Amino acid sequence: MRLAIAAAAAAFLTFPVHADDLAPEAREHARALAQAALESDLAYEITESLTTEIGPRLAGTPQEARARDWAVEMLTGLGFENVRVEDFPMDLWTRGHSIFEEVAITHPFPQELYATSLGGAAATPEGGIEAEIVFFESFDDLLAFDGAEDALEGKLVFVNDRMTAGRSGEGYGWANRKRTQGWVEAENRGALGLLIRSVGTSSHRFAHTGMMSFPAQRLPDIPALAVSAPDADQIERIHAMGETIRVALRTHSGWRGEVTSGNVIAEITGSEAPGEIVIIGAHLDSWDTGTGALDDGAGVGIVAAAARLILEAGERPRRTIRIVLFGAEEVGLVGARAYASARMQDGTVGQHIIGSESDFGARPVWRLSSGVGEHAVGFFDAMQQEMAFLGIERGGNSSGGGPDMIPLAAMGVPMARLDQDGTDYFEFHHTPNDTFDKIVPDEMAQNVAAWAMFTWLVADSDVDFRARPEPEAQDAAEGEPAP
Amino acid sequence: MRLAIAAAAAAFLTFPVHADDLAPEAREHARALAQAALESDLAYEITESLTTEIGPRLAGTPQEARARDWAVEMLTGLGFENVRVEDFPMDLWTRGHSIFEEVAITHPFPQELYATSLGGAAATPEGGIEAEIVFFESFDDLLAFDGAEDALEGKLVFVNDRMTAGRSGEGYGWANRKRTQGWVEAENRGALGLLIRSVGTSSHRFAHTGMMSFPAQRLPDIPALAVSAPDADQIERIHAMGETIRVALRTHSGWRGEVTSGNVIAEITGSEAPGEIVIIGAHLDSWDTGTGALDDGAGVGIVAAAARLILEAGERPRRTIRIVLFGAEEVGLVGARAYASARMQDGTVGQHIIGSESDFGARPVWRLSSGVGEHAVGFFDAMQQEMAFLGIERGGNSSGGGPDMIPLAAMGVPMARLDQDGTDYFEFHHTPNDTFDKIVPDEMAQNVAAWAMFTWLVADSDVDFRARPEPEAQDAAEGEPAP
Repeated sequence: MRLAIAAAAAAFLTFPVHADDLAPEAREHARALAQAALESDLAYEITESLTTEIGPRLAGTPQEARARDWAVEMLTGLGFENVRVEDFPMDLWTRGHSIFEEVAITHPFPQELYATSLGGAAATPEGGIEAEIVFFESFDDLLAFDGAEDALEGKLVFVNDRMTAGRSGEGYGWANRKRTQGWVEAENRGALGLLIRSVGTSSHRFAHTGMMSFPAQRLPDIPALAVSAPDADQIERIHAMGETIRVALRTHSGWRGEVTSGNVIAEITGSEAPGEIVIIGAHLDSWDTGTGALDDGAGVGIVAAAARLILEAGERPRRTIRIVLFGAEEVGLVGARAYASARMQDGTVGQHIIGSESDFGARPVWRLSSGVGEHAVGFFDAMQQEMAFLGIERGGNSSGGGPDMIPLAAMGVPMARLDQDGTDYFEFHHTPNDTFDKIVPDEMAQNVAAWAMFTWLVADSDVDFRARPEPEAQDAAEGEPAP
Repeated sequence: MRLAIAAAAAAFLTFPVHADDLAPEAREHARALAQAALESDLAYEITESLTTEIGPRLAGTPQEARARDWAVEMLTGLGFENVRVEDFPMDLWTRGHSIFEEVAITHPFPQELYATSLGGAAATPEGGIEAEIVFFESFDDLLAFDGAEDALEGKLVFVNDRMTAGRSGEGYGWANRKRTQGWVEAENRGALGLLIRSVGTSSHRFAHTGMMSFPAQRLPDIPALAVSAPDADQIERIHAMGETIRVALRTHSGWRGEVTSGNVIAEITGSEAPGEIVIIGAHLDSWDTGTGALDDGAGVGIVAAAARLILEAGERPRRTIRIVLFGAEEVGLVGARAYASARMQDGTVGQHIIGSESDFGARPVWRLSSGVGEHAVGFFDAMQQEMAFLGIERGGNSSGGGPDMIPLAAMGVPMARLDQDGTDYFEFHHTPNDTFDKIVPDEMAQNVAAWAMFTWLVADSDVDFRARPEPEAQDAAEGEPAP
């Protein structure tokens, strides 16, 4: 199977190879690391431990704090150096009651709906709301709605956009606009609340949660919920009958004040250039409805296991490898911003030679993308050649490195990404179904093999990956998914 | 695709053909009905209407009563005769609060679990229960547990049996024992409650509900719940670590006293032998967590549409076709027993020439099974030949006709069954995911084609299907699924 994948990948190869960019000893060591990774269950075991012993770990909650304790113990136990937590403040939002909100159609056909609040939403008034739905086939229709400023006054806005599945999650950004921006459009027009068809591609009854966006720090005064796809179908069917639809809802979510979260950091100190940092990341927090196995327990397992294999092999890389397990990613990259801000303060942003994050599930890596200076593209071409036996193709050179890398990338830190197959990622993402049983051990081992190769090759190199080109339109086509 | 299936079916055909058993005109009319069925969306539309306009319809509730009103209107509108409701009394059980019970592991790793009460279970004491789990790998292990009579005193029993998927749902009966009988074994040994791994084959976070069995009318004093497969995995993983597991739960389910349910009946009166009845059935009630699309909105659509096509074709069959949409199937075949009992009282059991029920989802029919006198087997062999173009094979001659046919079959009424492909039925069955979007229109049309052929051929025939053989061991192999 893997050989077939590798052969297929080779057949489609169209990038030039600059074999000279990788030192023979580095190649050989990287290959040995990959072989060791393919025989190791360490990443799988780390993710099993996190999801079993901690489980859901919403940003800012005691569960996320327990996850930090767990991470410190795990990283220390694996033999990493300089294991530490960098705290940061954040505003806590919680659901308040249950992940299943009280939502029901009251007219014309009374029926309970399966729905869940979107992150950041306000609660309904204590007795709840009962109002008519105004049906929008798409978010664009809502944007284009030019009724009077109070045209939706006293109504509930429903937005019906569907997401399409794709290997790079390319349908997510588009479908997600209603989740992130819908509330502003609804609230500006006087609506009592926002209901959206669940983002994601599944046909199960769990609605996809996720944080909303807050322009200029404005927070919503209205409730905002996603209803599951089959329940959105129900609304759509009744709407198609020409009936007026009324919905009752009662929610308890809201902002709970400032709390402390943190990023957990660990290192393998470089042998020759310890001040040069290769940063590999994942995020420790998860949504509260699942156990955050794919998002992002898998990433935690993958980067920690890859680094541990390097440690285990005994040979120290030239540069320092820094693992960062970010806090509070799901609620707006709060940990990533805090990390970048702290590095601005201590003046070490420039020491970050390259970065990457694993945060797209646990399916096989199928592509190596880079975001490096033009002179270093050949280095990545050669790296992909080394990875071809894992079924990995070469991507473009405008990768942003992953969600938690965004603040560093914005400061000019070079980036790379080991793109995972996300075709079914949004079947589970941000729902209760994001659980450990969805992970396939062999697929996870393939990830670790790719990560161990990448991490070793960039950390043991003396290539400066900086002088990054301006981001291009290609960015969108390569589908860097939002958090 | 269909041609390929038909060809494959023909190649495997091993049964003798008694073509003489079907009149040429009957064959021709049956073929015309099948063609009309394949071009009709009526069944799909009926099921859409039931699930959209009524939705969940737990036996004995006002929703089930609304479904009866809907059914009377639907059957009358389609032009059937003698449309009527036969009421019967039943004991109402409801969940009481929410389909999501408050269940959580409290030790060693606090985490909420997704669980749902089993039908018939008692509520916890008002403040809930918090107790240690005793882990049983299988229901057989619980049966074999020979500790003292109070060995499980003060504990919660957990049973971990897994179900395997199969076309005939053959894994269901075995896996279901823990659901139906588990509470007795737990309660007899002093346990405070029963938790089981969700019956069904899915890996989503919704637990499979369903009625328990009550030997000698005894009702449980303890709560009994199914936890979703990923949550059962969590319990299994912690158990494998050698840890003691404590669980807290609080439920509100219970018996609410006697209420009225009913069976909805409609007919096409036979032209020559109106006193001879072909009974075709489905059930109107559903579990409360989904909208009962597959179980059994689909059956309602299929049998009503098949009969309507016969009516529409203009030619009346010799015998009377009686559609019965049973109430209160899910809670113990209460409607089916009431129907059989009423026919005992009015002395018309013997007028039932043959019966069948559609109650296994909406996937294609792949086999025609019979339960008729030996002399009539050839008739069914010939019928299967007519159906072969639909991809339908010949089954054995020990079919029980379907869950709601059990009481009539026990009284000697001949039976038949159009066996549906149930490979993925238990992905959705008895969970919130049993919704209309899971139905494929073309597959439903294939069902109706088979049902129209079957119904016409037996109703227009003068063959007496009675003198039914004793049921054989084959019964189990053919997998008549439990309700």
